[in-house]
Amino acid sequence: MHTDLSAARTAVHAGRQSALALLAEAQAAAEQPAARHVFIRTFGEQAQAAARAADLAAAAGAPGLPLAGLAISVKDLFDVAGHPTTAGSVVLADAPPAARDATAVARLRQAGAALVGHTNMTEFAFSGVGWNPHYGTPVNPSDTSVERIPGGSTSGGAVSVALGAAWAALGSDTGGSIRIPAALQGLVGFKNTACLTPLDGCVPLSTTLDTACAITKSVRDAVLLHEILAARSVRLQARPLSGWRLAVARTTMLDGMDDTVADAFAQALQRLRDQGAQIKEIALAELAELADIQATGGFAAAESWAWHRARLQASEDRYDPRVAQRIRRGAAMGAADYIDLIQARRAWIARVEQRLAGFDAVLSPTVPVVAPTLASIAEDDAEFFRVNALLLRNPSVVNMLDGCALSLPCHRPGQLPVGLMVWAGHLQDDTVLSVSLEIEAALAATKGD
Amino acid sequence: MHTDLSAARTAVHAGRQSALALLAEAQAAAEQPAARHVFIRTFGEQAQAAARAADLAAAAGAPGLPLAGLAISVKDLFDVAGHPTTAGSVVLADAPPAARDATAVARLRQAGAALVGHTNMTEFAFSGVGWNPHYGTPVNPSDTSVERIPGGSTSGGAVSVALGAAWAALGSDTGGSIRIPAALQGLVGFKNTACLTPLDGCVPLSTTLDTACAITKSVRDAVLLHEILAARSVRLQARPLSGWRLAVARTTMLDGMDDTVADAFAQALQRLRDQGAQIKEIALAELAELADIQATGGFAAAESWAWHRARLQASEDRYDPRVAQRIRRGAAMGAADYIDLIQARRAWIARVEQRLAGFDAVLSPTVPVVAPTLASIAEDDAEFFRVNALLLRNPSVVNMLDGCALSLPCHRPGQLPVGLMVWAGHLQDDTVLSVSLEIEAALAATKGD
Repeated sequence: MHTDLSAARTAVHAGRQSALALLAEAQAAAEQPAARHVFIRTFGEQAQAAARAADLAAAAGAPGLPLAGLAISVKDLFDVAGHPTTAGSVVLADAPPAARDATAVARLRQAGAALVGHTNMTEFAFSGVGWNPHYGTPVNPSDTSVERIPGGSTSGGAVSVALGAAWAALGSDTGGSIRIPAALQGLVGFKNTACLTPLDGCVPLSTTLDTACAITKSVRDAVLLHEILAARSVRLQARPLSGWRLAVARTTMLDGMDDTVADAFAQALQRLRDQGAQIKEIALAELAELADIQATGGFAAAESWAWHRARLQASEDRYDPRVAQRIRRGAAMGAADYIDLIQARRAWIARVEQRLAGFDAVLSPTVPVVAPTLASIAEDDAEFFRVNALLLRNPSVVNMLDGCALSLPCHRPGQLPVGLMVWAGHLQDDTVLSVSLEIEAALAATKGD
Repeated sequence: MHTDLSAARTAVHAGRQSALALLAEAQAAAEQPAARHVFIRTFGEQAQAAARAADLAAAAGAPGLPLAGLAISVKDLFDVAGHPTTAGSVVLADAPPAARDATAVARLRQAGAALVGHTNMTEFAFSGVGWNPHYGTPVNPSDTSVERIPGGSTSGGAVSVALGAAWAALGSDTGGSIRIPAALQGLVGFKNTACLTPLDGCVPLSTTLDTACAITKSVRDAVLLHEILAARSVRLQARPLSGWRLAVARTTMLDGMDDTVADAFAQALQRLRDQGAQIKEIALAELAELADIQATGGFAAAESWAWHRARLQASEDRYDPRVAQRIRRGAAMGAADYIDLIQARRAWIARVEQRLAGFDAVLSPTVPVVAPTLASIAEDDAEFFRVNALLLRNPSVVNMLDGCALSLPCHRPGQLPVGLMVWAGHLQDDTVLSVSLEIEAALAATKGD
């Protein structure tokens, strides 16, 4: 088994490995019991053709496509030509097949992806828990002793990568939907600056905050997927860990950590410092303002209400009540509240960007807790919403900032997964990716300590 | 008396004309009885210094600044350092003096303008009529037999230019506030694509639609003022009238014309055709969709309610009731209505831009009627709102399009002023200016027919 997509495609390109054989392995992984509820539908034939083409190219000595016929899963939010898009809902279960690919999907296809299937998700991408009462909730594979939440909303996408059913998962991130499941499952999730990737053919949650992005097994795979999804070249800066100006933000980001996260985060910082990292603790008190700025309801509430209100009024009984409840929050929001929100956000971004001017990136725990058990949130609405708010809290800061962030694993073997979030402001994507590569290498070098 | 600012500055630069003497003439013009209610406050000393500097530069043979110490008026919406900005209201009458110039004002000052004063306007730039119950309504100078409305909201700015109290007037255009008074007073008003000119230091009406721009005496002056306000160079294309692909839009734009406008517009088209213009009549049925798109309230309602609601709730008695009534329309608008409006506008723009793809510019009457009498709207609210809607109807199409438009006079000597609007889509400013220069010349050549 190759460690990541980059390794696998090198083997396929070189003809040392059959893409078709790797696809068969991925499809077998999707069939195992642990993968139940992960896929809503699979696209067998298209995936076969892509893998076969990759093998033929390698056999002919032709240059291979960037994704080399390797399995990529697609969140059920993105149109795939010939298949319906249901966004993890039953309201859209009768949707006609999409006439064409979403641009993000088309770019993956053109890059040689074997698109293996639409993955399960929180209904309409609401919530960071990953709970789905319609299609079942995929189980977090990182703990075989008890069923834990996968994190969401890209729940199935993350499990597909964790189980080897896909090398990478196309998903979306509005308040953490890529980074939360990546963190809770020990994967890499990169949320680029929103404007860099196209959202056409994608069911919207928040037109202001939505971002199309991917979950991967390594930071270099995150670079690769981002380059394909954004149709751009990342300019990586090779600089030793000591060459980056890093910060840890005290406000909000460190609140409510459980022991595993607190320990893993502190140890990770120590291991980075041991290898020369300069990490300065800053207050970043502006993070405490976000609750007030969003007091009348955030972008997701207003914008999802705009999109859903006709459907919700017609068939609320077919919505997950926990999702309907969150969408309904947008109904009470006035146009002036929304305009105030836009302006308050703009001013807040300017203040935070100013604070961060002296730093290349900030380090935070992606989420303050390890994955809760499925049982703890299955029946208890109050606990569900408490956990949900806790999971979204740190990642959503970066969406409000219109910035970029990468979550990578920072726990020790044997621990439950903990994510380290490397983040920065608008269009600092290449810096975040460059820093993350260094951090990933530094943490790997000390894994056995 | 020079015909326009361009002619006057040539004379000042050449030392043939004293800028100080011209300023004295402008200031005398502002003192005449016809100019009552035009200025809310004057900036004598600053203007003197700019004119003196221009004369000294000319005497020394130094290169002159673009505005050569000539009188420019400023709508009471833009901050001028050291003076309060009251937006034609009494609610802001106690506002402290501005600490710094609005960027638009600073650019005029840097270009050597003699800033002569803050001009009267419709309170908070609401309405195309120009009515102001607080500071009096400036009278349209184009008819000495009866008092007619000046057009608004840049009412005083237009009169300042028409009477020679300024060579150009800085104003704003949200739904026609530059073009309506220009049309009703026989002047040139150019509303550039909104994003090209800065709005900081300007009291907002609609943050989506507001544009900073100017009223001038000629199209070449419009080019000059736009270059200064936008800090960019216009690329004029010299092309004979027959070289432009022009259209007349049938839908909406030609409805409800009075005889003077209908006659002047038809004659103008004929005169242009006689000189080789190719003008094709098109339906442009999309214009009829605007009423539906804005049915829940437009951008100005939502965005002005966001800005005014605290003030309005605290002191509604100090607002013009006709303005307060229009602002209050925004209170009922939901966030989802506003989001729908943004998305509907975006889709509408795409459809209209597609229709206009084969044309360089569209010709329409700027407003369908000549200036109504002041008496007709002074007491009659229903008539006021009817006239107001009629005046805003054509110009506001271009604001919704996020496009650009220039109004220039097309009436014959002895007629009441009628404006011809030359308009196009987003960032077609240089084309609109180029076409307008040709049309202005062509109409001037046949003025005596």
